[in-house]
This record gives sequence, structure tokens and C-alpha cells, in this order.
Amino acid sequence: MEVNGAPPEEFLQHPWLPVGISGCQLLAKIWFGDAAYHILLTDMSCVWEERMDSAAIQRRSQELNRRLRAPVKAFFSHLCEVAQPCLSGSGERADGEAQISLTRREDDNISIRLKSELAELPFYWEFRCTPCPSHTGTVHVSDLTSSGYVRVCTQLLRPLLAMSRLLQLQVGQLGGLLVKKDVEIQDYRENGATLSRERLQTDVFEEQTNRENFISKALPLVCSEQQETLGFGDDLQQLYASIVAHENTRALKRKLSEERSVQEDRPATEEHDLTPSLGVGSVSETPEKAGEQSHKRTDATGATKADGAKVQNSFDHPAGRPSSKPKKKKVGLFR
Amino acid sequence: MEVNGAPPEEFLQHPWLPVGISGCQLLAKIWFGDAAYHILLTDMSCVWEERMDSAAIQRRSQELNRRLRAPVKAFFSHLCEVAQPCLSGSGERADGEAQISLTRREDDNISIRLKSELAELPFYWEFRCTPCPSHTGTVHVSDLTSSGYVRVCTQLLRPLLAMSRLLQLQVGQLGGLLVKKDVEIQDYRENGATLSRERLQTDVFEEQTNRENFISKALPLVCSEQQETLGFGDDLQQLYASIVAHENTRALKRKLSEERSVQEDRPATEEHDLTPSLGVGSVSETPEKAGEQSHKRTDATGATKADGAKVQNSFDHPAGRPSSKPKKKKVGLFR
Repeated sequence: MEVNGAPPEEFLQHPWLPVGISGCQLLAKIWFGDAAYHILLTDMSCVWEERMDSAAIQRRSQELNRRLRAPVKAFFSHLCEVAQPCLSGSGERADGEAQISLTRREDDNISIRLKSELAELPFYWEFRCTPCPSHTGTVHVSDLTSSGYVRVCTQLLRPLLAMSRLLQLQVGQLGGLLVKKDVEIQDYRENGATLSRERLQTDVFEEQTNRENFISKALPLVCSEQQETLGFGDDLQQLYASIVAHENTRALKRKLSEERSVQEDRPATEEHDLTPSLGVGSVSETPEKAGEQSHKRTDATGATKADGAKVQNSFDHPAGRPSSKPKKKKVGLFR
Repeated sequence: MEVNGAPPEEFLQHPWLPVGISGCQLLAKIWFGDAAYHILLTDMSCVWEERMDSAAIQRRSQELNRRLRAPVKAFFSHLCEVAQPCLSGSGERADGEAQISLTRREDDNISIRLKSELAELPFYWEFRCTPCPSHTGTVHVSDLTSSGYVRVCTQLLRPLLAMSRLLQLQVGQLGGLLVKKDVEIQDYRENGATLSRERLQTDVFEEQTNRENFISKALPLVCSEQQETLGFGDDLQQLYASIVAHENTRALKRKLSEERSVQEDRPATEEHDLTPSLGVGSVSETPEKAGEQSHKRTDATGATKADGAKVQNSFDHPAGRPSSKPKKKKVGLFR
């Protein structure tokens, strides 16, 4: 069931929060609107989703709380108050009284049950999340463009690849700085300087050796950690937020640019710059120019790691691509 | 249609190769077996798939090449020879004679058409890839565990998150090394050392300032690059390969361990260590111990960035989790 949920750009900017319920480690992205909610959950092996509008919430509340006779608005704020901490924390209990439990069902759905107290009576809720896409009947493939499946790409795949790429560039930049420090240190030493304490002396930084050693030691840690806690910690959350905010700004600028080009044929109208309304003012005003600066900077550090240009080249001139003609086989396949 | 394809661990270790066809930038993971193939394609907004067995290949070859009367094995090696370079390069033409084109269809499928020459006659092929999961009819949700959808998580989501995490730890480690270099430099200078050339002097490394400056400059570059080339370059490919190889080894060890524990109740049998057969001997023998070493190393560098322990803590003691009881609302919701 597709219902009106969070505006896509707003939902994209919500963080993925680590949640542990009933021994199950998940990342949760939640949006509570005006008597509506949208939840994405993942254990990185599957992504589940539930989108509920006011009418659906009303029906479920009747099903789970037979004595409850109240409009959605009367209990929705309580549901938010109880559910939000549960879905952005890691404990079994949301607070002093609310209880939460998770069940993985045989049909691959997951059910998160919540028991709290409202007006001195128990209040039950259940989030019934289905794997994205949540279609279990006949699927029109054209639905996929707006399906939960596409959200997996938007909400996770693209940002994660951008995060990896950005961190990889940062590793290159820091490597470049280390090389510069070594040059400075070498100059002091060549001029006869000595250390007051021998233990302060550092090894010369060698990018490849360092990377190989680091990866062989950190890899088992990261893989164990991913199994236990998924490993999407605070620093990665911040990076995710920066990246999706930037993507949203780009999308908005593209949209505005398209609208302007459409309007070019029409009489001039007053234009409003909507960018500040997104609240992502920290993003560079001139992406392309800043990109060039970053490029120069990476070059200037003397980093030997791949930068944008190298990757670009690898696309333009793929290695291992045979340029010779295929051998013609003189076999009688066609009759 | 689910057919027997590549063994999962083998397919996981195949690289994602950047491919540009008809102006469309994709990442492709391809496996050609014995008269069977399995292709995954993504533009990071959608993931498409086609799995074909011998019988399906035979049917399609008949459909596309009416004059071809040959068993699959007779032309499959030609198909591999022509298709593999096309799906691991970035050009329009696979070689001197083969032509390739990509069409995105209205039903969200993509079609990659290939025209080559076999036995001096044109040989046509078409890869018809559908969004994962490729089910377009009735779906039993229990099928999802083996569906293309789960492959998106296994093949992309999990490795990408691990890559981000690993690179983030490496950024922390390099930051720690830079701090050590600065301590060494400071000691030289305090002992009166001077540089022969002023321009060799570096700025003191400040982790947070560096990160903020770097992100604001690199972010626009990375986002533009992702739009143009997806940004999954050689270095990230290598990291991907290391991570999935390690995951495969872990999975195999887990499986062996489970089998051994099952065998404990049975009479003793000869045991074979199958690990070397995976060909991932570079992976540390004792993951947990190596993980601890990596941990210590990060600490020893004096890095102030989040490490495993910090992230672990953030799961154990989530911030912003209210401990107070919920306010009881004295409203008459229940009757």
C-alpha cells in the first residue's frame, strides 16, 4: 500500500539510527508526520518498510485495542512519544513502562510489538514491516520506480558509495599530508637536528605498506563489528547526512534550473530561490569550482592515490579491453 | 525465473566493473559459466538482473538468429568472447566488429543488444535485464530469501557499509600518525632546529578542521562524479574484493564450525580444512585477535576519531534516550 508519506527529500535527510530489539541489530529510519508514519528498517541483509496513513492507523488501533474509541489524533502523539525512543535506541524497553519486542516471521516480515500505558490502560501497537518492495501480489513492474525497492537505492546504495568514495579521497589527502611531514622531518634531520626523546621518532610513511597493513588488521574487526552492530556509527551518520543534504540541494537546483528554462519562453515572472528553505546552507555555493579546488589540493599534497581524474581515466580507457578483431570460427552453425 | 547460476560465494567475489553503453553509466557484475550466465547491473538507482541457463539461452538464440541451428555449447564461447569485454569496458563497440547498445524500456527493464559475427554471418544477442527482484507475477514472500533483492543487500549494501567503516577507521589511523609527526616536528623545533627551505614547513594537523575543510571541498566533486561515472573506481574495487573475500572465509569457517559441532555426537571422523580451497589465504588466521591488535594500534596512535570501542559504546548507551516514565494522560480514550 502506497500512502502519502514524508516528502522524499525530507525522508532522505533523516538519519539511519542503530536499534537493538530482542537481540536483533537494525538500522532504522523513521518519520512521524501528522497522523502518519513511514519506517524503514534494515539488518543489511534485508530492508523492511511500513508506511501508514491516518485511516490505516485508525484500523490497526481498533484491531489491537478493542476498547479504544478515539480518533487517531487523540492517541497518535502518544504513539510517537513511545515509539520514537524505541526506534532510535538499542534497549528492550522504551522507557519506564513501554515494552518492545521484535519477531521475525516465517513469511520474512518482521513485527515490532509495543506495549505502553495510555490513560491508565494498556495501549498496544504493532509495526508490521514487509521486505521492500512490499508487494506480495501481482506487481506491475512500472510500480518499481516508486517502490520501496528504489528507496533502498536512494536511501542506502547511493549514499554509501559516495561515503566510501569521499573517505577514500580523504585517505589519499591524509597520505599526502604525511608525505609532506616526512619531507619536513627529513630536512630538520639533514641539518643535524636530533630528538630530545628517541621514542618520538616516527617511521617514514609509505602509503602502500600502510594500507596493506591497516586493511589486514582492520578487516576482521570491521567484519565482526558489522555482524554485531552493523557498524553505522556516529561519524558515518554525519557523513551520510552531509552527502544526502548535498544531493538534495543539487536536485533542487536542477529542478529550479529546469523550471527556469521552461519559463524562458514565457513572460518574465518573479523568481524565488528556495535553496535556503532546505536548511543545508553549509554546502558549497559553487560545486564545480569547489570540486576543482579539491582536485588541485589533492594533487598538491603529492598523494599517489587514485583521485577523480584517475578514476575518470579508468572509465575512458578500460584496461584489459581487447582491441583485436574476434577470431572467425569456420564452423557450420548457420544453415 | 530462478536457475542454477554461479555459486554464491564465487559470484560475490566477482568485481563490479564500470561499464558505459549508449551513454549510460553502469556497474556490472557478470558470471559466465558452462552454457549459463548471471548478470547484475546497477546505475545505483536501480539494480537489474538476468540469469539464464542452457535451455533459456538456446531458446533466445533461436528467437534472435533464425538461421542458427546449433547446440548452445557451439556458440556460447563466442557469446562469452564478445559479451565479456562489452560488459567490462566502457565503449560502444566491444571490438572491431561487435556492436553493443542499451535501451531502457518503459517497463523499467533494460535491454542490451549485441551484434557480432559468427561463421561469417551476423550473430545477435540480447540481455534482457529486469529490476531485482525479477518476479513480475505472483511472488511468494518466502522466495525473497533467495531473490535478486537479497542479492542487492549481499552484493552491494553490506560490502559498501563495511568499506565505509574500514576507510573511516583508516582516516582515523592516518590522523593519529599525523599527530605523531607533529609531535616529532615540535620536538626538533623546540631544540632549535630550523628548515633549510621555509616552504617545507607544514601546518599543524587538526583533525576536525581538516575533516570539515576536506568534506566541504570534496563533497561536490564526489556527488558530480557519482552522477557521471558512479565513482566505483579501482581502489574501491580492491577494497570490495578484500571485504567479500574475508566475508566468504568467515562464512565458510562458520559453516565448518557448525558441521563440526554436529559431528561431535558422532564417532570421530577425519577432518579436512577447506579454507585454502577458497584461495583467500591473505586473510588473517585469527580474526578476533587481529581485530584487537588493530584496536590497540588505533589507540596507540592517539587518534581521537571514533574507533570500534566508541561505536560499540554508542550502541550500548544511546544518546537521547529518555529514562523518565511517560506522562499519563488523563483522557478518556478507552471506554
